Amino acid sequence: MGFFDMPLEQLRDYRPDIAAPDDLESFWRDTLGQARALPIDARFERVETALTLVDTYDVTFTGFGGTRVKGWLHVPAGTDTALPGVVEYIGYGGARGLAHQNVTYALAGYAHLIMDTRGHGWWAAGDTPDDSGELGTPGVPGLMTRGISDPSSYYYRRLYTDAARAVDAARSVPLIDPERVVVTGGSQGGALALVAASLVPDVAGVMSDVPFLSHFDRAIGLTGRDPYNEIVRYLSRYRDQVATVRRTLSYFDCATLVGWATAPALFSTALMDETCAPSTVFAAFNRYAGDDKRIEVYEFNDHEGGAEHHQLVKFAWLRELLGRL
Amino acid sequence: MGFFDMPLEQLRDYRPDIAAPDDLESFWRDTLGQARALPIDARFERVETALTLVDTYDVTFTGFGGTRVKGWLHVPAGTDTALPGVVEYIGYGGARGLAHQNVTYALAGYAHLIMDTRGHGWWAAGDTPDDSGELGTPGVPGLMTRGISDPSSYYYRRLYTDAARAVDAARSVPLIDPERVVVTGGSQGGALALVAASLVPDVAGVMSDVPFLSHFDRAIGLTGRDPYNEIVRYLSRYRDQVATVRRTLSYFDCATLVGWATAPALFSTALMDETCAPSTVFAAFNRYAGDDKRIEVYEFNDHEGGAEHHQLVKFAWLRELLGRL
Amino acid sequence: MGFFDMPLEQLRDYRPDIAAPDDLESFWRDTLGQARALPIDARFERVETALTLVDTYDVTFTGFGGTRVKGWLHVPAGTDTALPGVVEYIGYGGARGLAHQNVTYALAGYAHLIMDTRGHGWWAAGDTPDDSGELGTPGVPGLMTRGISDPSSYYYRRLYTDAARAVDAARSVPLIDPERVVVTGGSQGGALALVAASLVPDVAGVMSDVPFLSHFDRAIGLTGRDPYNEIVRYLSRYRDQVATVRRTLSYFDCATLVGWATAPALFSTALMDETCAPSTVFAAFNRYAGDDKRIEVYEFNDHEGGAEHHQLVKFAWLRELLGRL
Amino acid sequence: MGFFDMPLEQLRDYRPDIAAPDDLESFWRDTLGQARALPIDARFERVETALTLVDTYDVTFTGFGGTRVKGWLHVPAGTDTALPGVVEYIGYGGARGLAHQNVTYALAGYAHLIMDTRGHGWWAAGDTPDDSGELGTPGVPGLMTRGISDPSSYYYRRLYTDAARAVDAARSVPLIDPERVVVTGGSQGGALALVAASLVPDVAGVMSDVPFLSHFDRAIGLTGRDPYNEIVRYLSRYRDQVATVRRTLSYFDCATLVGWATAPALFSTALMDETCAPSTVFAAFNRYAGDDKRIEVYEFNDHEGGAEHHQLVKFAWLRELLGRL
Amino acid sequence: MGFFDMPLEQLRDYRPDIAAPDDLESFWRDTLGQARALPIDARFERVETALTLVDTYDVTFTGFGGTRVKGWLHVPAGTDTALPGVVEYIGYGGARGLAHQNVTYALAGYAHLIMDTRGHGWWAAGDTPDDSGELGTPGVPGLMTRGISDPSSYYYRRLYTDAARAVDAARSVPLIDPERVVVTGGSQGGALALVAASLVPDVAGVMSDVPFLSHFDRAIGLTGRDPYNEIVRYLSRYRDQVATVRRTLSYFDCATLVGWATAPALFSTALMDETCAPSTVFAAFNRYAGDDKRIEVYEFNDHEGGAEHHQLVKFAWLRELLGRL
Amino acid sequence: MGFFDMPLEQLRDYRPDIAAPDDLESFWRDTLGQARALPIDARFERVETALTLVDTYDVTFTGFGGTRVKGWLHVPAGTDTALPGVVEYIGYGGARGLAHQNVTYALAGYAHLIMDTRGHGWWAAGDTPDDSGELGTPGVPGLMTRGISDPSSYYYRRLYTDAARAVDAARSVPLIDPERVVVTGGSQGGALALVAASLVPDVAGVMSDVPFLSHFDRAIGLTGRDPYNEIVRYLSRYRDQVATVRRTLSYFDCATLVGWATAPALFSTALMDETCAPSTVFAAFNRYAGDDKRIEVYEFNDHEGGAEHHQLVKFAWLRELLGRL
Repeated sequence: MGFFDMPLEQLRDYRPDIAAPDDLESFWRDTLGQARALPIDARFERVETALTLVDTYDVTFTGFGGTRVKGWLHVPAGTDTALPGVVEYIGYGGARGLAHQNVTYALAGYAHLIMDTRGHGWWAAGDTPDDSGELGTPGVPGLMTRGISDPSSYYYRRLYTDAARAVDAARSVPLIDPERVVVTGGSQGGALALVAASLVPDVAGVMSDVPFLSHFDRAIGLTGRDPYNEIVRYLSRYRDQVATVRRTLSYFDCATLVGWATAPALFSTALMDETCAPSTVFAAFNRYAGDDKRIEVYEFNDHEGGAEHHQLVKFAWLRELLGRL
Repeated sequence: MGFFDMPLEQLRDYRPDIAAPDDLESFWRDTLGQARALPIDARFERVETALTLVDTYDVTFTGFGGTRVKGWLHVPAGTDTALPGVVEYIGYGGARGLAHQNVTYALAGYAHLIMDTRGHGWWAAGDTPDDSGELGTPGVPGLMTRGISDPSSYYYRRLYTDAARAVDAARSVPLIDPERVVVTGGSQGGALALVAASLVPDVAGVMSDVPFLSHFDRAIGLTGRDPYNEIVRYLSRYRDQVATVRRTLSYFDCATLVGWATAPALFSTALMDETCAPSTVFAAFNRYAGDDKRIEVYEFNDHEGGAEHHQLVKFAWLRELLGRL
Repeated sequence: MGFFDMPLEQLRDYRPDIAAPDDLESFWRDTLGQARALPIDARFERVETALTLVDTYDVTFTGFGGTRVKGWLHVPAGTDTALPGVVEYIGYGGARGLAHQNVTYALAGYAHLIMDTRGHGWWAAGDTPDDSGELGTPGVPGLMTRGISDPSSYYYRRLYTDAARAVDAARSVPLIDPERVVVTGGSQGGALALVAASLVPDVAGVMSDVPFLSHFDRAIGLTGRDPYNEIVRYLSRYRDQVATVRRTLSYFDCATLVGWATAPALFSTALMDETCAPSTVFAAFNRYAGDDKRIEVYEFNDHEGGAEHHQLVKFAWLRELLGRL
Repeated sequence: MGFFDMPLEQLRDYRPDIAAPDDLESFWRDTLGQARALPIDARFERVETALTLVDTYDVTFTGFGGTRVKGWLHVPAGTDTALPGVVEYIGYGGARGLAHQNVTYALAGYAHLIMDTRGHGWWAAGDTPDDSGELGTPGVPGLMTRGISDPSSYYYRRLYTDAARAVDAARSVPLIDPERVVVTGGSQGGALALVAASLVPDVAGVMSDVPFLSHFDRAIGLTGRDPYNEIVRYLSRYRDQVATVRRTLSYFDCATLVGWATAPALFSTALMDETCAPSTVFAAFNRYAGDDKRIEVYEFNDHEGGAEHHQLVKFAWLRELLGRL
Repeated sequence: MGFFDMPLEQLRDYRPDIAAPDDLESFWRDTLGQARALPIDARFERVETALTLVDTYDVTFTGFGGTRVKGWLHVPAGTDTALPGVVEYIGYGGARGLAHQNVTYALAGYAHLIMDTRGHGWWAAGDTPDDSGELGTPGVPGLMTRGISDPSSYYYRRLYTDAARAVDAARSVPLIDPERVVVTGGSQGGALALVAASLVPDVAGVMSDVPFLSHFDRAIGLTGRDPYNEIVRYLSRYRDQVATVRRTLSYFDCATLVGWATAPALFSTALMDETCAPSTVFAAFNRYAGDDKRIEVYEFNDHEGGAEHHQLVKFAWLRELLGRL
Repeated sequence: MGFFDMPLEQLRDYRPDIAAPDDLESFWRDTLGQARALPIDARFERVETALTLVDTYDVTFTGFGGTRVKGWLHVPAGTDTALPGVVEYIGYGGARGLAHQNVTYALAGYAHLIMDTRGHGWWAAGDTPDDSGELGTPGVPGLMTRGISDPSSYYYRRLYTDAARAVDAARSVPLIDPERVVVTGGSQGGALALVAASLVPDVAGVMSDVPFLSHFDRAIGLTGRDPYNEIVRYLSRYRDQVATVRRTLSYFDCATLVGWATAPALFSTALMDETCAPSTVFAAFNRYAGDDKRIEVYEFNDHEGGAEHHQLVKFAWLRELLGRL
């Protein structure tokens, strides 16, 4: 489709009005409060992998509604003191995978905690059920419309809460320095990183790549690609629920939630990204509350974004950031 | 793809060996027993529609695990005595829809009960949550792999049970003659009709069109079309669960269950059906226990099968069958 | 593609200039005059179906050029007095189908006359040949370019005339009250309903869903989907006929013809309809001459439009309208 | 799809039984007799083109049912004596095009007559209406099912007759030597060349490339590609007409008609041709009555067949053949 | 996609600023100088074809870097004096093909020289290797990114030079009048014709259809179709080379080079051309230096453009032009 | 497509006859001899990456025809003694990528040398030109047909030689124990691993996943997927080169070359792999000369094969193998 969204100059100034519900703050305060009322009970059990350079732990902690959320923690082999930590969230459809699949940040010397994604796992294996909420009336295949008829039952209420609790879990383990926890991820993972930085504003930093779940109103009418389009398919059948769904989504729009986020931030976007259009990413970036923020723009990429090139940018940004702390 | 399956002569004799688990009978006896231990509590509330020729009732009954399963009951306007009943099940992705959408059998003078499909509803609206089972570890989008790691948690355990209970519900309402309940449906609905006739063998008849969920072992390797292919996608990721999944499916294979079905039966299949290949339908037909059975073959159709032409065949078969009772 | 057309606010005001030929009125006066010069000779033969709640008649009447046009008439079983009538036209590619396939308005208590579509019948069976006109030089597959080199030979001259004559036929049968005939249809059927209301302005009402054949000039350059795109394919080969084709189409543009239509009207459109784009529907709606008009907008639907939800709106609008008469 | 049909060794021996109707001979004798009862009235009017090396004539002759069939005749500029002639038929969807588009055989020194294809013209312009037959009840888009409910009304009865009459027309012009008329074409054109050689067995030769309309029974169930698949689509809707359509097609099967053809023949086929599968071509080749026949096999081609390479084979075969006469 | 580019009125005035490198002129002066420093050594060897009306010569001349570039020369049979010449360049993916495939302009009485395309030949056979340049680091499949890291190694430096040298070669043969050489081609061939007219400004005329390689900056972000999209794919992987690639392309933009072209010119474009969008063609047309220029616009065509209809326009334009000389 | 190839039982016994050229051995002896006549001149330059657990070296060595082939060498940080080495080759379209992208085997404690792929680099960046051979006449896009008209100029002659020389290079560096070099890769990389084990039979082991370039004769006619299908496209145009191409390929068929390979071997294949069909993989496996061989079969996977699950099998096999040495 070529460049289907606004030109870059316009994107840099794009600050759409996005209606937020009056009770947004109390919704999340209550939600997080209930979640934190349960003990985190984070367990880290050493597992054997073939990777001799890394020590890996099978992680389990209590997420939304008591669900035991899984994860992996990787640290350089032999680590026994607190390292700066990177908490990584996974993109739509994926999950933590097998123990040896992803040790990127441990390789660079950090404690690397990967949060599993409840109910997910079709391009990477998952081990966490989405068992703590009402599924409500049926949605279309995928998870975008699970429980979408009310904010309280919406799937992302549970997952956003897990994301915040993963930071709590990371801070509870002696191998991680609680003052130096950075959150990151791409696509849905990029959204969860923003959510974590919004709900747990004292994280040390956030690196959010081609984030999803941002500026829903524009996103669902822009390109017709999944997963945003799951919502369109749902509304094309349940024509009487347009206002209901819009209301639910207003509680989960990253472009709104980032009004609470103040940690140093590195975003990335791609101008040919038809999955998470650049205007929806810039909406979040431009409305991000913190001043110490920067966005890398990849001109000719689709949703893969900056990939291996951007990883280098992230490694450098991370080193610089943690050097400052 | 043209004729991708066996030639018709071969299909007529196709009786594959399909391994059945030793405890198949007890599995279903126990499952059904537990379900029937709960009161059916079938409610029929009159609703207004614009259809003046038909009286419509909003149906609710207790299915698997206590889930309140929805449905519609349509009868000719003014009916107040027991009519022969047709219980209809819906195809994959669909559900009971709105009250006025489907009154086919009421139009022909029968009491027409449509069972809603738990957790479904993307091409027709659904109102029944799939809330009574463990979702287990994540599956791929769609419902084919929900809880597939064990027969006890598999989605179709719940839905098959609902199908049997829908017959019980139909038999509980004064507007339906319990001796003259026929079950029917197409695709997943055709499978559910076979399941109902297998688990409730004293139904008066079964009309199963292009049935799904039959002869899994062949089906999942034959054409690569969804929904069977959801299982392939799942196994392509969870490579270590092939035997587990095969075991689970062996409890739900219609081509096995129909060994218990004895009611008069009308099947239909289409030779270019790449969704539910004709060999998988003939596997069920040829292994169906009852002798009073017949299959209509539509030579040049894909999964739409005989559609409006076959509806005429069904009306005639039904009249003839009920005339005999 | 998401929202590919104008935003809703703009659509509501969209009144494009569309050039009309000087002799438009005489063209249609003459065409209709010639057609009405032939006796309508409407026959209604009772046929048996399995639908015991409905009496069905096989309809034949004289359409354009003497062609005997088929149809079905359904009335509530036992009807022997005049009912309000609904004349329904079918979408592109379809035709009247089998006798039992569609009795929607009879179910709601009306006399329901379905007009067959000459030369059509690929997604529903047709029985009316397009045998009264010159086919002229070849067009591309489909019927959009049949005889398109001149208004007098264009396929839609014949079909539009049939649509008007179907109202005449409906008014000729004792089971229908001639003062209370409403025309309806979706897509091509929606266009034919508008045409009938334009050529026979004293119909009691018109319900036109996602109408086709409107604002050709915009439609053929907007999305590239069939059937409008048949015209593009034709012009891509017959490059020397662009002006000729534009001239022909100017006689058949519903957005022009509705300047003659004054009956109460209910339109519907869908904002993601790439087959009949919302701006082409609003062009017809905004230029519709009658003041008693209303349009339902389905935000997240493609060409399926409001479907079962809109059917409820139509039933209610119809009841209200006929209540007023 | 790779090699989807039989291996070459099997193809060489493939002689399927194909049922022929008892009255096949009288059907064609009568059809041709009626056509020839009308005067051919072949007109050749010189037209100007920019091609200075070729003299071009606009051809008109009387085909089936009196239709005036168009064509082009090209001869080397200044030709005024009789040359050997090549009559060329065009593939499905195409027609004679513009005057300057195709002068292949004139370039090689022959009189080159191109027959227009009635009712066709979507990838090359056509000028001949299909106006002499009953269109009958509607078929699906395209021409494969026009009038297919009876051999007498089937589209190909008209076109096959035109093909034979084109030879008559060619023989009537002084610029062509009637003893040295060769017929040729590819796909539908290849079928028409076989038909001409079957109905006018004293043509001097036939060159048939990747011929269509052969061994229908196998063709329509083999790959699902158009245009054969138009028949499948028709039968998928008109399920009650399978036997009727099979009967009609039995009068038009090139693999049967070639039992009457005795002229020297050059066939070509391609092993990856999914439009006109090699087994259907070999069925015609192996059943071709004449002994002087040969087939070129292109191993890795789809329906484009031998194209420019095979043109060289044809030029050489033609020179050798005409040298013998 | 319908009309995806600007409306025609805007296109007519579209004169984008396109940055040209400072050393553009010296780059091409040097490149051409080096090429012309090698003797052209044009050979014309008579070959036999079956086309008796045309004499054909196998052409070989020295192109960029000493590569022996192939071609065909066709003249009316028996020609032995100098004719006006048409030099034709081939579209992307094609090459000179076999000797008998294309004699269009010889048929119209001209000497027709077809230049082979180095390294090309997938939809028509090619015989010229791309053996005189450094291939440089790998590009994506196709030729658009071969050597793209520097203007000196870019594939099109070699091909553009060949195009200019083909004019030199044409002028060296006694069968062609060097004062009356017109260059032509479609798509890539249309670009090469513009390049030849820019680098060899004293050609007698240029006919450029739907030209490629023009206004790169807009082209690569407009529709996402190959071959322009090969550049996008390259940049999506080699994210660090965006500026490098832009710089390279700036030396090869036909919309810039035509600032040097002054010969009479006939352009053509199509408004639905998603391969070479009309705005990129108008950019070249509007910036073409010569005043004697004209553009034909085909409204409803994609990249096939005016095809057989435009050929007539070209024949007429050519005759008129050469009549003036 | 489901299971499109033979059933597993048949695959296990599938030992096709594959014609080998008489001079196969001398061809490869000479080719390798010439390559080894040039000094390997392997350079290993330490580069900085962000990966603190690994030391990375930029590798350069002399491959076929003097081309300087690039690569990466990764070892556990601080390694200064000889480790067992794993030489990895990359799949079609990919290349060595950036320095930090793939350190899999270093993570497991091995010296991991990744060979860049000459001329490749579209899904991962490449740095090695294919500059040492004649490109010959043009092929289709991609590298499968580059120089295919003769074994001596075929692209894979150069790449296969590089693969053997990569082992030589690995053995020349002090960080790798020359007695314990294992070769591996997937798809094209799996083929190159087999080639290395065939041309350098004293490697310690080979792990070949879903290998490409095996049993060409079957592969090119089986599914129509690229890259094998590049050969089909080439032959569909260059119809006169079928025998030539078959001859060339016979020198490069892994299913033949493995007749020289004796090292312990671990293969993997997937039964739904339409890119490298299981029968072509089993052809190589069953004809592999060494006795110590094993193949893992992934039933429901396409060309991704065993992926993360098979990586575990490989780690275990490798540890066991190297433990034995």
